[in-house]
Amino acid sequence: MIFPKTSLNLSGERFGVRYRIVAGDENEARARAHGICLEQTVEVPDELLADDDIRAEVVGRIEDLRAVSAGRFEVEISYAVETSAFELTQLLNVVFGNTAMQPGIRVLHLDLPDGLLRRFPGPRFGQDGIRDLLDVHDRSLLCTALKPVGLSASDLADLAYQIALGGIDIIKEDHGFNDQPFAPFRERVERCAEAIARANRQSGYRCLYAPHVTAPADQVSKRAHEAKSLGASALMIAPGLAGWDAVRMLAADDDLALPILSHPAWLGTFVLDPDQGVSHEVIFGQLPRLAGADATIFVNYGGRFTFSQDDCAGIVAGAARPMGDYPTIFPIPSGGMDLSRLPEMYEFYGRDGVFLIAGGLYAHGPDLLQSSREFRRAVEKLSHQ
Amino acid sequence: MIFPKTSLNLSGERFGVRYRIVAGDENEARARAHGICLEQTVEVPDELLADDDIRAEVVGRIEDLRAVSAGRFEVEISYAVETSAFELTQLLNVVFGNTAMQPGIRVLHLDLPDGLLRRFPGPRFGQDGIRDLLDVHDRSLLCTALKPVGLSASDLADLAYQIALGGIDIIKEDHGFNDQPFAPFRERVERCAEAIARANRQSGYRCLYAPHVTAPADQVSKRAHEAKSLGASALMIAPGLAGWDAVRMLAADDDLALPILSHPAWLGTFVLDPDQGVSHEVIFGQLPRLAGADATIFVNYGGRFTFSQDDCAGIVAGAARPMGDYPTIFPIPSGGMDLSRLPEMYEFYGRDGVFLIAGGLYAHGPDLLQSSREFRRAVEKLSHQ
Repeated sequence: MIFPKTSLNLSGERFGVRYRIVAGDENEARARAHGICLEQTVEVPDELLADDDIRAEVVGRIEDLRAVSAGRFEVEISYAVETSAFELTQLLNVVFGNTAMQPGIRVLHLDLPDGLLRRFPGPRFGQDGIRDLLDVHDRSLLCTALKPVGLSASDLADLAYQIALGGIDIIKEDHGFNDQPFAPFRERVERCAEAIARANRQSGYRCLYAPHVTAPADQVSKRAHEAKSLGASALMIAPGLAGWDAVRMLAADDDLALPILSHPAWLGTFVLDPDQGVSHEVIFGQLPRLAGADATIFVNYGGRFTFSQDDCAGIVAGAARPMGDYPTIFPIPSGGMDLSRLPEMYEFYGRDGVFLIAGGLYAHGPDLLQSSREFRRAVEKLSHQ
Repeated sequence: MIFPKTSLNLSGERFGVRYRIVAGDENEARARAHGICLEQTVEVPDELLADDDIRAEVVGRIEDLRAVSAGRFEVEISYAVETSAFELTQLLNVVFGNTAMQPGIRVLHLDLPDGLLRRFPGPRFGQDGIRDLLDVHDRSLLCTALKPVGLSASDLADLAYQIALGGIDIIKEDHGFNDQPFAPFRERVERCAEAIARANRQSGYRCLYAPHVTAPADQVSKRAHEAKSLGASALMIAPGLAGWDAVRMLAADDDLALPILSHPAWLGTFVLDPDQGVSHEVIFGQLPRLAGADATIFVNYGGRFTFSQDDCAGIVAGAARPMGDYPTIFPIPSGGMDLSRLPEMYEFYGRDGVFLIAGGLYAHGPDLLQSSREFRRAVEKLSHQ
């Protein structure tokens, strides 16, 4: 059968997705690209469609296709903005829903028009907003993580106090912290927030505290509000676990209005195989920013993970390239860093990086307060040399 | 520094994760496995831990490690159930949170003790419950999808009417259907539910209708309830987009109490590279079931995707192997199937498969009602031969 002929009254506005496709030659690449155009929209063979607006407007459109290296082609496909239903979950669905099951196709870049970007709140703070909260405008920022899972709330609060007093700008929780019996969420957040506030009063610093609020679907918002009411000054959430739109929900919440750190847990598989999945730029740059995160945590090159310098440069690009009127967000490289890496990190990320050293800070010496002060002095020195 | 020595009062109950690790020799495999034990829990180097319960109980424990082929090792690692906080998001976090960023490590299988499984609702219906709703106990089930995106609600309702009258058991919506202007959610669900109910009254069948309720994080539950109030008799959701716990939330909702179909959108990347990510069995079998889905949609071998027979057998195993007192759920192979594939599908999946033919049903002939009847007769014949 042929589907009923349909007239639509679409805006004509389209968004673009750049894919890299593995194919033997340009004909095969074009056939695979055409397959994406159908798969991501109507999901029926071409010949079942009437000669109508569905075929002309709803089906994805190949805007550009070119060979980039042996057996690799880049194709730009555009989709009517209306297919996204102006919802983040559905936008991602159009970008890569079923095509994620096809080998040899990678999402490289999203090109979203201003009209579509305005349907989402975007980052509330971004780099400038976080700098304003900290009142730090002239140097790279410092971040560390509360560790380890298993410690009591009061032991964690003791660590948080020393770190904050030592001059670290942002204390995030390990992403393994949730509502475990070792250190239940409410008690932990209350004690740590109190300890950091006490340190801030003594030091004059404005250390931010970001509890981890990834939670069951019906409790994310509640836990974020609890965190705020208990004294949290930022939030951390893992979109790979909670879903991307949970980040958007928190970012859109005017009663929260706290900076959001996006954590990479459960997202790694998307980037590891360069011929499949989704690029570092999109997963750790564009998507967190689109979802409204103000900073994106990822693993730095040369640590205990295997991201390359190019991968990390892609993430910085996704965090910083023009994207409607969304602010630039902070890249937070981490994962096996220590103080000896700071000069190199500074050279690569510059003043607009947040350097997350966690295990390496605890391991740096016997006195956490002194180690934190040393971390702070090192970053100040690099930023002002 | 060394972290404070900690006494915990853990239950001793542990859950297991089987990983496959790429390594040159057993020593390297053991080192990588030990890395997982730390990364997925305390996320600090061993030497910073006191000789305490955190080291003995919280850090993952290598229970078994053996070579399975050249350069490939399987390791069973156990974790204290308390690390999961008895929340699905955090359980997944412990299974693969940061390790997903390490190349050459794949999650093969989850081994969850009854005590942990009982913390989640599990599938409310499973295979038996869906068969009871349909009053069909002696044959494989039939499923198709409403298509394509772009059609109006009333055109879709016309298609749904013919399909239901033709004897298809389950009509799901394409996962591209959301709340687009072409066919807004409320209007679409109301019209399609009405059309299917009308067909059921005429035919005496009990065709189920599963609208797609993947939605923004704060609207999933609302949309599911709307769907039910408008006449939906099942629900479809894509955990890759909405988050796994959104499925759990719907499954736990006694006021909904509808069968849930899990859709694979955005999950494909996890399975494509056999040395990384997560196995087919876990992603399309164990996780949907753990989250409470009653049926799991995936792409069949030999269609327009590239899953192998072994991959599909793994999914069936994940849907059917003993898992506490959770019921067996239905595998729903799909993705480029047509009626000519039915004998082979029947041979492979047997009576306890749900055969999803969508594009192939529309393409089968000019009359959708006749094509649906033919699909029904073919499955009845296979099941009773």
